[in-house]
Amino acid sequence: MAQTPEYAIIVAGGSGTRMQQDLPKQFIEVAGKPILMHTIERFYEYSPSVRLIVVLPQEQLSTWRSLCQKYHFRLFHMTVPGGATRFGSVKNGLDAVMGEGLVAVHDGVRPFVEVDTIRAAYDAAAKYGCAVVAVSPKDSIRELVGETSRAVPRAKYKLVQTPQVFQVSILRRAYEQPEQEHFTDDASVVESIGESITLVEGSYRNIKITTPEDLILAEAFAAEV
Amino acid sequence: MAQTPEYAIIVAGGSGTRMQQDLPKQFIEVAGKPILMHTIERFYEYSPSVRLIVVLPQEQLSTWRSLCQKYHFRLFHMTVPGGATRFGSVKNGLDAVMGEGLVAVHDGVRPFVEVDTIRAAYDAAAKYGCAVVAVSPKDSIRELVGETSRAVPRAKYKLVQTPQVFQVSILRRAYEQPEQEHFTDDASVVESIGESITLVEGSYRNIKITTPEDLILAEAFAAEV
Repeated sequence: MAQTPEYAIIVAGGSGTRMQQDLPKQFIEVAGKPILMHTIERFYEYSPSVRLIVVLPQEQLSTWRSLCQKYHFRLFHMTVPGGATRFGSVKNGLDAVMGEGLVAVHDGVRPFVEVDTIRAAYDAAAKYGCAVVAVSPKDSIRELVGETSRAVPRAKYKLVQTPQVFQVSILRRAYEQPEQEHFTDDASVVESIGESITLVEGSYRNIKITTPEDLILAEAFAAEV
Repeated sequence: MAQTPEYAIIVAGGSGTRMQQDLPKQFIEVAGKPILMHTIERFYEYSPSVRLIVVLPQEQLSTWRSLCQKYHFRLFHMTVPGGATRFGSVKNGLDAVMGEGLVAVHDGVRPFVEVDTIRAAYDAAAKYGCAVVAVSPKDSIRELVGETSRAVPRAKYKLVQTPQVFQVSILRRAYEQPEQEHFTDDASVVESIGESITLVEGSYRNIKITTPEDLILAEAFAAEV
């Protein structure tokens, strides 16, 4: 039996503003190389046959090529210019997917995703159509209601991570609709066409490097290995 | 005008199970001393006149005393034995509060709380009665509904931290009621007697040290200073 083709769209749209650095966060060095290279390595570690599509802002493509040369980074991947929003970027990445199979969407700045998590997400998507990695919140949660707020039961909520893996046909259909403001991740896009989402247990190590605090944690994680 | 008396109940009930260590997490050393000592120092830094009540499991009280000697830790505080649950522990701490004023409840394993955050929380409680420190989630959020789940707008939620500061009379009244399962923090206890909560912006550095990952981050934060 031929194996189902597996794609991964790695979205790296960061400009560096929240990180208080000029360098886009995906290019910031952790443990001797840009974050985005670590992320790509995780997918290769899972399977060298995953077809990797890296989405970067148009103006960063040449910088990325230079970085790959500088760091002798030779893991094969294609690059695609991003859109004006994350939605647009994933859409552009999806245009590079040929035929059917499974497609993961993953944040370029989540370099600590475990190989087992990637595998569990592809497996669940193969079985159920749509799989999203998520963890339970460690903190109590409050819901904002008008001018005030109220406690809500923490056990009823999950914090969403990536990868989010889909059957290609489903993700394609979801991205045919116009962008809406409440799309914060691919699960919400897919859900709005009536598909249901299977949750896969993530890990607290699978952080999205967004703020300077995250960068400190990233260096510490990397130093451990 | 005499200053309003300010109390802080620092709750340290950890047993160490989630941390995969034998040592209760509040006693784990970060940057050369137990986490709980760092936490106490933050409140002293805010104001040396805060009346500090540290709640510890009965069986840890003598260990704590030994640690204070060993580390020459001389910041004045009283200790109170904890209850069977967090609710019971706060209740015991509250019994040590005399008269009126403001009382903060703070996790013993949140040693990176900023002095400005502590101040903002006491100030808001002085003005509005009940103030809770919280931050916006960085991740998308899903709500579990029966067997399935659905995307909810992240902007409508806050992740709750501590300190949570209250007018003493309000917190006392709240803790007169029997414990309920949905009490996950003091805000939820106070809310159930009809009080409304003011949110105070927290910080992503104000982590609750719960898992081994948090300990790595804690060491990195401490090393920065």
